[in-house]
Amino acid sequence: MGTDEFGIRPGEEMAALPAEFDAGLHFIGRLRTPWRTRQDCPKNGLQTDAVCTVDVDPAYAPGLLTITGCTHLILLYWMEHATRGLVVQQPRHAAGPRGTFALRSPARPNPIALSVVELIARESDTLRVRGLDCLDGTPLLDIKPYYASTDSRPEAQVDRAGADT
Amino acid sequence: MGTDEFGIRPGEEMAALPAEFDAGLHFIGRLRTPWRTRQDCPKNGLQTDAVCTVDVDPAYAPGLLTITGCTHLILLYWMEHATRGLVVQQPRHAAGPRGTFALRSPARPNPIALSVVELIARESDTLRVRGLDCLDGTPLLDIKPYYASTDSRPEAQVDRAGADT
Repeated sequence: MGTDEFGIRPGEEMAALPAEFDAGLHFIGRLRTPWRTRQDCPKNGLQTDAVCTVDVDPAYAPGLLTITGCTHLILLYWMEHATRGLVVQQPRHAAGPRGTFALRSPARPNPIALSVVELIARESDTLRVRGLDCLDGTPLLDIKPYYASTDSRPEAQVDRAGADT
Repeated sequence: MGTDEFGIRPGEEMAALPAEFDAGLHFIGRLRTPWRTRQDCPKNGLQTDAVCTVDVDPAYAPGLLTITGCTHLILLYWMEHATRGLVVQQPRHAAGPRGTFALRSPARPNPIALSVVELIARESDTLRVRGLDCLDGTPLLDIKPYYASTDSRPEAQVDRAGADT
């Protein structure tokens, strides 16, 4: 029962996606990382100390004004190789199937990934950051300041006991 | 110098957006909130105790499987009324202009908004959550589990002293 690198596994479930899109995205730059295959990528941004580069296209670089006031940023980027429409997934190391919206898998109807990164430095149209885990060349969608007041929830739990399915 | 509700202000800067999109989005549901105009919306999700509803389209609702194991979620949604291409902005209460990527303003090249919400309950294809601040009917793009390990940065600062511009 082989599956290709970005394919689906037995027991997983696909949704029928509409033929047309509801809205469109502009790629505003690219993420430069040390990882060239999905297998090379760390499982998450905490598993590496690698300093990565955010290359912002010159047209959008004026949007970096005052960004160095932020210690941490939220990056949104586009998992262009992901299988869209996968709504139930069987992660390799989970006991049973999980809903896509209970997973951070790149495979999702809108494959927008999110990482919280530490801003190390700005150099003209590029940022140096720590905390990325994605493939080299991944398209960038957005950069946002991270506010501890609204974005930090140290008490949050996943897979809490007693939850229904 | 009047500006319309979603328009731009003197001193702000627009980028020329490409004529074509690089990728497309599917709206997967709608956010139901008490707020019908932008002026009614709280400034952020901490300024209200309102319990809001996430209506997931039936085609995508299987993706909610096992989600009640999560205490907190990240919601991504589409600010459909936002001015795209605004790269430098003059917030009403800031001393000087800010880059779009240093702001959480809905006006940005890809107007994807992000809120961290508390999951109160699931009822079939809907979620009851606390922490939203957006207009009623806002299109939903994604739901992700919030991991304290990777997403919580209580030490993060914005507007730190001594930052360059």
